[in-house]
Amino acid sequence: MGKHYAALETRFKRIHDIEGVAAILSWDAQVIMPSGAVDERGEQMAALSGLAHEILVDTATGEAIEGAAGEGDLDDWARANIREAKRRYERARALDPKLVEAMTRAETITEMAWREARAKSDFELLRPKLEEIVKLTAESGRQIGQALDLPVYDALLDGFQPDLRDAAIEPLFTQLRAALPDILGEVRGRQGRPLTPVGPFPTTAQKALGRQLMETLGFDFSHGRLDESQHPFCGGTPDDIRITTRYREDELVSAVMGILHETGHALYERNLPAAYRAQPVGSARGMAVHESQSLLIEMQACKSPGFIAYLAPRLEAAFGQQPALTPENLRLIYRYVEPGYIRVDADEITYPLHIVLRHRLERAMVNGDLRVADLPGAWNEGMKELLGIVPPDHARGCLQDIHWPSGAFGYFPCYTLGALLAAQLFTTAQAAIPSLDDKLSAGEFGPLVGWLREKVHSQGSRLPIGCLVEQATGAPLTADAFLSHLRGRYLN
Amino acid sequence: MGKHYAALETRFKRIHDIEGVAAILSWDAQVIMPSGAVDERGEQMAALSGLAHEILVDTATGEAIEGAAGEGDLDDWARANIREAKRRYERARALDPKLVEAMTRAETITEMAWREARAKSDFELLRPKLEEIVKLTAESGRQIGQALDLPVYDALLDGFQPDLRDAAIEPLFTQLRAALPDILGEVRGRQGRPLTPVGPFPTTAQKALGRQLMETLGFDFSHGRLDESQHPFCGGTPDDIRITTRYREDELVSAVMGILHETGHALYERNLPAAYRAQPVGSARGMAVHESQSLLIEMQACKSPGFIAYLAPRLEAAFGQQPALTPENLRLIYRYVEPGYIRVDADEITYPLHIVLRHRLERAMVNGDLRVADLPGAWNEGMKELLGIVPPDHARGCLQDIHWPSGAFGYFPCYTLGALLAAQLFTTAQAAIPSLDDKLSAGEFGPLVGWLREKVHSQGSRLPIGCLVEQATGAPLTADAFLSHLRGRYLN
Repeated sequence: MGKHYAALETRFKRIHDIEGVAAILSWDAQVIMPSGAVDERGEQMAALSGLAHEILVDTATGEAIEGAAGEGDLDDWARANIREAKRRYERARALDPKLVEAMTRAETITEMAWREARAKSDFELLRPKLEEIVKLTAESGRQIGQALDLPVYDALLDGFQPDLRDAAIEPLFTQLRAALPDILGEVRGRQGRPLTPVGPFPTTAQKALGRQLMETLGFDFSHGRLDESQHPFCGGTPDDIRITTRYREDELVSAVMGILHETGHALYERNLPAAYRAQPVGSARGMAVHESQSLLIEMQACKSPGFIAYLAPRLEAAFGQQPALTPENLRLIYRYVEPGYIRVDADEITYPLHIVLRHRLERAMVNGDLRVADLPGAWNEGMKELLGIVPPDHARGCLQDIHWPSGAFGYFPCYTLGALLAAQLFTTAQAAIPSLDDKLSAGEFGPLVGWLREKVHSQGSRLPIGCLVEQATGAPLTADAFLSHLRGRYLN
Repeated sequence: MGKHYAALETRFKRIHDIEGVAAILSWDAQVIMPSGAVDERGEQMAALSGLAHEILVDTATGEAIEGAAGEGDLDDWARANIREAKRRYERARALDPKLVEAMTRAETITEMAWREARAKSDFELLRPKLEEIVKLTAESGRQIGQALDLPVYDALLDGFQPDLRDAAIEPLFTQLRAALPDILGEVRGRQGRPLTPVGPFPTTAQKALGRQLMETLGFDFSHGRLDESQHPFCGGTPDDIRITTRYREDELVSAVMGILHETGHALYERNLPAAYRAQPVGSARGMAVHESQSLLIEMQACKSPGFIAYLAPRLEAAFGQQPALTPENLRLIYRYVEPGYIRVDADEITYPLHIVLRHRLERAMVNGDLRVADLPGAWNEGMKELLGIVPPDHARGCLQDIHWPSGAFGYFPCYTLGALLAAQLFTTAQAAIPSLDDKLSAGEFGPLVGWLREKVHSQGSRLPIGCLVEQATGAPLTADAFLSHLRGRYLN
C-alpha cells in the first residue's frame, strides 16, 4: 500500500469512528437521554460533527486523495474508495463554512418552529423560517453544484443518493403518475373490507414477537438491539445496530410491519463489507438503495401471501385467536388501499403519489419557481390532482413532514426509487432462488438475505448506483417491476 | 476577556465535549451495548481519547495558557482555570507518546489476564503482565515527576487527587493503623448479632424504592437515570448523570446503601459550578473529594440512627414487615463489623486497613522496593498483620481488585482519605445546621445537600484540596473526626 493511500485510510478511519460515536449518541438522545440533557447533547453533537468536518476538509485529506490516485497496485476496492473519499471531500470543500454554520443554526430554529406550526396547524408560524431554509439550501446546492458541475437540485439529490440525477427521476415519476390512479381506482372497486383486530395487544408480547421475527430474518442480537422511541428508526453502526419501534396496545398489524421494515435496513448495515467498514467505500450506497432494502423486506417479502401464512399463527399464538388474525383477513388488511392525507400512513399504491407531489414542489422551491408563501395552495392543488382529496388543515397537509424544515430537499424521491428498486430486486431474486415463495411461507429467509448480501449489501459503495442495479438485476432501474408487482398483488 | 484566555476556553470546551461523549459511551458499554460491539467500541473510545489528547498537548494550548496568564482583568475563577488547565497540559506533555501507547495496550492485555487469573486464582497467569504494568507505570511516574518536580509515587497520586502528596498520607495512615485494631476489637466484643432479612425482594420494588430515596436526597431525574450494570458506578455528565446498581432478589440492605452511595457522587457532579462546567476549573476536585461525597451520604448521613428510623418503615412498606427490618435490627446490620478478605465488602472500621495494605504495597512496587513476584507473600503477611486473617487463595487476596492490572497505582488511598474527609465535613455540617439529625430522621436532605453544595460542590476545582478542606471545615484534614465518628457510632 502506498503512503498516500495509507494516509487516506487513516484519516477516513478517524472520521468513521467519530460518525459511529455520533450514531450511538443520536440513538441515546431518542431512546435513553433525560430531557434536561438536550442542550448539552446538542453541544456534544456539534463538537463531533465539527471534528469530523475538520479532518475531512483539511488540505491533507485532499493531498492524500490526490496522491493515492497516482499510486499503482490498487485493487478495485481501493480505487472505489479513493473515488468515494473524493466525493465526500469535494462536497465538503465546496461549501462556505459560514453557510454550513448558518444552515446548522437555521435547521434547529426551523425544526422548533415547525413543531409549533404543525401542532397549531398554522403555516404562518413556519413560513419566514422555511423561506430562510429554502434560501440557504438553494445556496448550498449552488455552491456544491458549481464544484461538481451540477444543477442546484441535482447537487442536493446527490447528497442523499450519490449519482442520482433529476433527469433519471423524471420519466419514472411520469410513468407512475400516469399508471397509479388507474390501478388505484381498479383496486378500490374490487377490494374487500378487512376486519380490524381487537386489542389490547400487550407490549411485552409485541416485543417478544418482534424479537422472534427479527431473528427469523437473521438479525443478530449480539450485534444489535430493539428498543422504543417516539419515531421508529434504524441507527447505530454495523457492529451495533439499534432498531427502535413504538408500541400501542390497541394496534398490532402495522407495528409488526414497522419492525420488519427497520430490520430490512438493519440487515443491509450488518452485511456491509467488513474489511472496508471504516472506509467510505464500505458504507451503504445511498438513501434510495437503503430504502429498497427495508421495502423489499416489508412490502415484497413480508406482505407476500406466503409470509402472511407464516405470520398468522404466530400472531394468534401471541395474542389469542380472533377472526381478524386469520391469514385471509391479514391479507385483506395488508392490501387495503385508500387515499389519505398522511404520507407515512399511506399504502403501497398511493405512497408514490405523495412523493411525486413533494418532488415537484421541492424542486420548484429550490429553483425559485415556487414561493414558500404559495406552498400551501400548491400542496392542496397537487393533492386534489394526484389523490383526489384536499387536506382539511395544514397539519395534515404541507406541515406534516419534518424533511423541509430540517433542510432535507432531495430526500423524498429516494423513498419511491427505493420502492421501485425493491420490486426489481425481488423479481430477480424470485428468478434466482428456487421456490422462494415457499421458503418465505416456512420463515426461511436465509436464501433471500444471502442473495441480497451478495448482490447489494456486501458491495458497499464499490459501484455507482447504476452499475449496482444492472449487476444485481441485469437491467437499469425502471418502474416496470413495481407496476407488475402492484398488478400481481392487488389485481390477480 | 483577553484573546489568549478566550482561546484557552475554546480549546478546553472542545476537550470537555469529547470527554462528555466518552462518558456516555462508557456508560452505554456497561449498560446497553450488545456484546459483539466490544471491539468497535474500543476503537471509538481510543479515537475519542486520541482527539482530546491531541487538542490538549498541542503547542497552541500551551501558548494560550502562557498568554492568558499574562492578561489582566481576570477574576479568581479564571486564574484558577488557568492553573488547572496548566496542570492538565503539563501532565499530558510530560509523557512520551510511545509510553502512553504502550500503557494503553498493556492495560487492555493485563485486564484480560487478570480476569482469567482471578477466576482460576492463579497469580502466575498475571505476574508477567503485571510486571510490565508496574514498569510502565513507574516510568510514567518518573516522566511526570521530572516535569512537575515530584517523586514517582507523588506524581501518580497527583493524577487521581491533585496536590495529594505521600507525605500527607503517611501520618494519617499511621494513626489509623495504630487506632483501628483496638476499636475493632472493642466493637467485636460488644456488638450484637443482627437478624438477616429474608427475601425475595422483588427487583421492581427495589427499583421503585431506589428512585424514591434518590429523589428524597434531591436527585433530579430530568438530569439523570438509574439503571443496572454488573459493577455499580456513577457516570455520565453533570446534566445527564447515570447511576447504576445491581439487583439481587435475595439481598436488600447493602443494595439500598449502594444506590445512596452513588447518589452522593451524583449530587457532587450535578452541583458543580454551571458557569464553569466546560472548563477544567469546573470539574470535581479529585478522587478523594469525590469519595468523601459518596461516603458522607452513605456512611455519615444514611447509616445514622435518624435516617435508619426514616428508612425502616419504607422498607417494610415495600417488602412487608419482618423482624429483620425494624430500625433496631437495621442499626445492628449497618454497624456489624468483621474482618474479611474482600475490600469492597468491608465495613467502615476494617476498610481503611485494607487500604493501608494496598498503599504500602503499591508504593513499594513502583519504587522498586517490592518485586511483583513477591506480592502474594507480602499481601498475605500484611493481611495477617493488619486484619489478623490470611486469604485462603489469591482470588480473595492480591487478585481481588482491578486497579493495579489496569495501571491505577495511587488510587487506593483516595478511598480512605475520602472517608476521613466525609467525617470531618459531616461534623462541621452538624455544627452549622441546626438539628441536622432530626432533619435526616424526617428525610429532609435539603439543608445538608445545600451546605455541601456551597462548601464543596459549587467550588469545582477553584481551590487546591488543602484550601477547600480548610475553608469548608476550618481545619486541615486529620483522622480525628473519623475516629470520633467510629467511637461515637460503634462504642456509645
